Amino acid sequence: VEAGEDEAARERIGRLHPADIADLFELVSDEDRPSLARVLGDMLSPDVLAEMNEHVREGLIDLLAPEQVAEIASELDTDDAVAIIEDLEEEEQQAVLDAMEPEDRAAIEEALSYPEESAGRLMQREFVAVAEHVTVGDVIDRLREDRELPTDFWEIFVVDPMHRPVGTCQLSWIMRTPRDIAIGDVMKREQTLIPVDMDQEEVALRFQKYALISAAVVDRAGRLVGVITVDDVVHIIQEEAGEDILRLSGAGDGDINEPIRETYSARVRWLIANLGTALVASSIVGMFGGAIEHMVALAALMPIVAGVGGNAGTQTLAVTVRALAMNQLTDSNSWRAVFREIKIALLNGGTIALIAGTATALWFANPGLGGVIAAAMIVNIFVAGVAGVAIPLLLDRLDQDPAVASSIFVTMTTDSMGFLAFLGLAVASGLTTL
Amino acid sequence: VEAGEDEAARERIGRLHPADIADLFELVSDEDRPSLARVLGDMLSPDVLAEMNEHVREGLIDLLAPEQVAEIASELDTDDAVAIIEDLEEEEQQAVLDAMEPEDRAAIEEALSYPEESAGRLMQREFVAVAEHVTVGDVIDRLREDRELPTDFWEIFVVDPMHRPVGTCQLSWIMRTPRDIAIGDVMKREQTLIPVDMDQEEVALRFQKYALISAAVVDRAGRLVGVITVDDVVHIIQEEAGEDILRLSGAGDGDINEPIRETYSARVRWLIANLGTALVASSIVGMFGGAIEHMVALAALMPIVAGVGGNAGTQTLAVTVRALAMNQLTDSNSWRAVFREIKIALLNGGTIALIAGTATALWFANPGLGGVIAAAMIVNIFVAGVAGVAIPLLLDRLDQDPAVASSIFVTMTTDSMGFLAFLGLAVASGLTTL
Repeated sequence: VEAGEDEAARERIGRLHPADIADLFELVSDEDRPSLARVLGDMLSPDVLAEMNEHVREGLIDLLAPEQVAEIASELDTDDAVAIIEDLEEEEQQAVLDAMEPEDRAAIEEALSYPEESAGRLMQREFVAVAEHVTVGDVIDRLREDRELPTDFWEIFVVDPMHRPVGTCQLSWIMRTPRDIAIGDVMKREQTLIPVDMDQEEVALRFQKYALISAAVVDRAGRLVGVITVDDVVHIIQEEAGEDILRLSGAGDGDINEPIRETYSARVRWLIANLGTALVASSIVGMFGGAIEHMVALAALMPIVAGVGGNAGTQTLAVTVRALAMNQLTDSNSWRAVFREIKIALLNGGTIALIAGTATALWFANPGLGGVIAAAMIVNIFVAGVAGVAIPLLLDRLDQDPAVASSIFVTMTTDSMGFLAFLGLAVASGLTTL
Repeated sequence: VEAGEDEAARERIGRLHPADIADLFELVSDEDRPSLARVLGDMLSPDVLAEMNEHVREGLIDLLAPEQVAEIASELDTDDAVAIIEDLEEEEQQAVLDAMEPEDRAAIEEALSYPEESAGRLMQREFVAVAEHVTVGDVIDRLREDRELPTDFWEIFVVDPMHRPVGTCQLSWIMRTPRDIAIGDVMKREQTLIPVDMDQEEVALRFQKYALISAAVVDRAGRLVGVITVDDVVHIIQEEAGEDILRLSGAGDGDINEPIRETYSARVRWLIANLGTALVASSIVGMFGGAIEHMVALAALMPIVAGVGGNAGTQTLAVTVRALAMNQLTDSNSWRAVFREIKIALLNGGTIALIAGTATALWFANPGLGGVIAAAMIVNIFVAGVAGVAIPLLLDRLDQDPAVASSIFVTMTTDSMGFLAFLGLAVASGLTTL
């Protein structure tokens, strides 16, 4: 944005959706963001901040006084305000809370008392709840009169005298019903209740499975305390589904706006772990030093066995991690999944062995070497298939995230097994000697 | 399900949500599904089929006559009916369409005329549209009287006389407004219109970005032809976000219910491609046969250089592919992303070089070898960083899916470069000779 063109730019940006203005901030460089914020002034609204990538937002919020942050937070729904405040440092957080109105502050503090990434942080406290005996006409009249009620909602919750949910009612059902009918006769009794401490990933799976638009959140006593709407869940579904790819490769939170220091720290730890496991494969090769010295072609061929095995392992791993994330793999079908992968591994192993074995036999004019690489391929792709499905299943049983540690173990297994099978068979078959 | 316990099982299952009954089918083995279907009888409702994994559903539909499929399809919303029918073989599809009522048939045929995975296939044709001048009271009266209107909807669309959308109105806004106000004064004019041929991935991104609950679908002339609701989009967001991990590893559609033949065919093709690219790395090692013969420790160490480099490349690749999928990387910030990855690669490379170099120098009591592996690590991790971000960006510019082919190129680059840098530097530094 050039000086002097501020007005024209302001006008064009003013017509954009808050999500688009937030995108604009993400697209400009770290250094340009404060001046963009200055030019935009009050167009940098609370809604725009709520839509922004958390790293970009943190950078901007750091420039503001706690009173300004408090004012922004009080204009947002509880869930959006919590999203902004939960990322602040302890001290800043306290300063912002101190600057808020007691009522807003209490709502935020209550939300912060629930675990991170739980339903309690995700829910809004603004919702419409009525008793079962109230008529459609009464509901509509109350909605027309009471200016304190929320404006954007999709369902009405029906509660008993203890404030426990007994049913939900889509607005379309209410609108299609005559005024004198009681809400209790319009509502649906079966509903998905979300416990306040449920993990957000589980919440997202429920929304997806039952095609929910909104759902009641209940405390331990079963009382209605909030509501989660699908638009707050959609980005969690996205994040959780996309996260596995980043975890499998050890890429940290994988956000291109994350400060470089944090990215470096997440990734380098993984590479160091990888360095450690690579030692295992390396020491296996070391054991066969003599065999390689006598037949140096082995050194050229061994990366192929390890590499293709590694890829086969990654395929199985990706499928298993996805199936686990979507709750498709349970106790009852785990063994079936393992057998399925074994069958596929035998088919893949057979095909690759045939191609690699024939090509090697012809190229080196050495049928023995062809046979050895073929056998090693079958062994390694089989091991890759078993490891690729068994390791994540095992980690899941042990309540570990299967996406985080699996790939290091699987790669270590396929590398080591590839070298061991290939070099070991070469020695055993008398092609070379140790 | 044991014989004789059918009744008890039926009763328990009868209380489940269609999505849960669908899950039950997915959990039992291929062979048991037909008998489960027999026991359940009419509890295997159209809704249950609509919720089912496509491979499992296809297996069941194959057992039905075209007339039965036609009846099921006619009970579903157009989008769900299309999802079932589009997967059938050409011939079966025709038989089912022939067995349908002309009206239902026309709706399905129109939907099938749009490209696969487009908004036209995803949309429902059932929606509520009114003119701008109609009052809130008239809308409510019409909804109460007209039994033909859909029962589940979240927004009302306002259209001009040419049936072009001019605004949308949340039901909650209508319910909070007195009867004599015109809809035109309640509606929001800014709305996200979905062209009928838009790709479903793009549709999902719009829903996510603008937190939509439903959106109007328009034809080329701008006329309202259908509506997409968020519950139909949620599983697409899930699928598309989770797909990249499967594509990167060449695991096909990665569904654990996919027939083994199809899975084998998808995966083996990838492994064969991998075999081809592994030849490049292998032939580089072959060029250094003499060097390895003179110093066999090189054969043990070279997989470490290639492996850690490969992992660094995969990290960058995963981050870049995710950012591209979420529209976070555009022309304006691509270069920034490349420089960011270069900085991280230099930090990672420096750290890993220090550790690997020192350890090697001490272990082999050979400082020269330590220096060579350190230098090779820096080179390879740098190359991995550049390749990991540049290759997917390039494929994206060429309108190719960056998730599909990137990983093979990146792995080929890091393997080859790892061997070349390590063995080449070993020769150049005089540690060994060719």
